Amino acid sequence: MDDIHSKYLEQAVEALGSLPGIGKRTALRLALHLLDRDLIEVESLANAIVLLKQYVRYCTTCNNISDKEVCTICENPLRDHATICLVENIRDVIAIENTHVYRGVYHVLGGVISPIEGIGPNDLSIDLLMQRLQEQQISEIIFALPATVEGDTTGFYIFRKIEPFNIKASILARGIAVGDNLEYTDEISLSRSIQQRLPYSNLIQ
Amino acid sequence: MDDIHSKYLEQAVEALGSLPGIGKRTALRLALHLLDRDLIEVESLANAIVLLKQYVRYCTTCNNISDKEVCTICENPLRDHATICLVENIRDVIAIENTHVYRGVYHVLGGVISPIEGIGPNDLSIDLLMQRLQEQQISEIIFALPATVEGDTTGFYIFRKIEPFNIKASILARGIAVGDNLEYTDEISLSRSIQQRLPYSNLIQ
Repeated sequence: MDDIHSKYLEQAVEALGSLPGIGKRTALRLALHLLDRDLIEVESLANAIVLLKQYVRYCTTCNNISDKEVCTICENPLRDHATICLVENIRDVIAIENTHVYRGVYHVLGGVISPIEGIGPNDLSIDLLMQRLQEQQISEIIFALPATVEGDTTGFYIFRKIEPFNIKASILARGIAVGDNLEYTDEISLSRSIQQRLPYSNLIQ
Repeated sequence: MDDIHSKYLEQAVEALGSLPGIGKRTALRLALHLLDRDLIEVESLANAIVLLKQYVRYCTTCNNISDKEVCTICENPLRDHATICLVENIRDVIAIENTHVYRGVYHVLGGVISPIEGIGPNDLSIDLLMQRLQEQQISEIIFALPATVEGDTTGFYIFRKIEPFNIKASILARGIAVGDNLEYTDEISLSRSIQQRLPYSNLIQ
C-alpha cells in the first residue's frame, strides 16, 4: 500500500482507516467505492457525520444521546420515571429498547470503571445519577451493566453510593441464554442459573 | 435498531450503512465512535472523502486514478512505455506495484465483461486502449485480468481486437488460483506470475 498515486486517495484511505475495525485494505476498498458513487451521495455522507458530531447532544437528565436538551425517553410521559435502568453506553439502551419489555427510564454511565484503561468513577456520569436520586422520586434502580469484572466493580461502587437513598436495587438475571445448549454454556453462568432457579410457572406465563 | 432517539444519529448510521460490507450494527458502532472523536477530526474525515470524489481524476492515457491529467506511472520516463499491463481495476495496479517487479505501464479497463451484471465491452476503456495501440509504439501487452470466466472472456475479446496490431500478447502465469482476484493474491505468487508470464496463446489452446 506504499504508493497509490493520488494524494487525495491516500488522505481518504488514511482517514477511513482511522475508524475502528477498518484496516488499510478495507479503507482502500471503501475509498474506491466512494469514487464510484455520485458526488451528491458522497457529500451527503460527509454531511451526515459532521451534523452528527455538531448537533447530537447528551440528555441532561440521563446522559443518553439526544437531539434536544432532554432525550425522547426522558420526556415521554408514558414511561415509568421512578425506575432507572443503569447501563454502560448508548448501544445498551438501544439493545434493551429493542426487547420492548422495559417501560422505565435509563441512566447512561458512559463507560465502566477500568483501572487498566484509566477510567475512574469521575469519568462516568455518577454525579448526575446522584443528583437525580436527590431531586426525583426513584423507587428502583436496575443494574444492567456488563457481566464482567469491570461491570461488577462499577455496579458495586454505585450500589454503595446509593445505599443511603434506600432505593430498591436489582440486577439483570444471569443464566443460560435463550437458545443455548447447556453443554456449551460456561460454568459460571450455568452454576448461577442453577442457584438462582425460578418457579417453573415463570416459563409458561 | 428501530428507534435510536436522534435523527442525526439515524442519518449518520444510514449513510455509513450504505458503504459496502458495513451493516447497520457496524454503522452504529462507527457513528458512536465518531461522536467520541473531536469535531476537527470528523470534519477532516468528511473533507477527505469529498475532496477524493471532487478531485481524483482518471489518467487520460491509461485510465488509472490520478490527481493530474496523466498519472504518475504514465509520466514516469523511467518506466517501459512499450509494455502495457492490462488490469481490471485500480486495486490491481496497486497490487502489482507492490511486488516491485514490473517496470512497464498499465491500462485499467474499469471492469470485466459480465453479461449477468450488464457490463459489456463498451463499458470498459477498450477504445482508449485501441487508440493507444494506434498512436504509440507498443511491443507487448500483458493480460493481468482475473482468473475467472469473466476475466478470460474479456481477455479473449481484447486479444482478438489487438491481433491486427501484431503485438506480443502474454498472460500472467497461472500460479494464481483459479477464481481468485488479484488483490487477494499474496505478493510472492503475484510477482512469480508476472515474471513467468506466458504467450497468450497458452490460454486458448
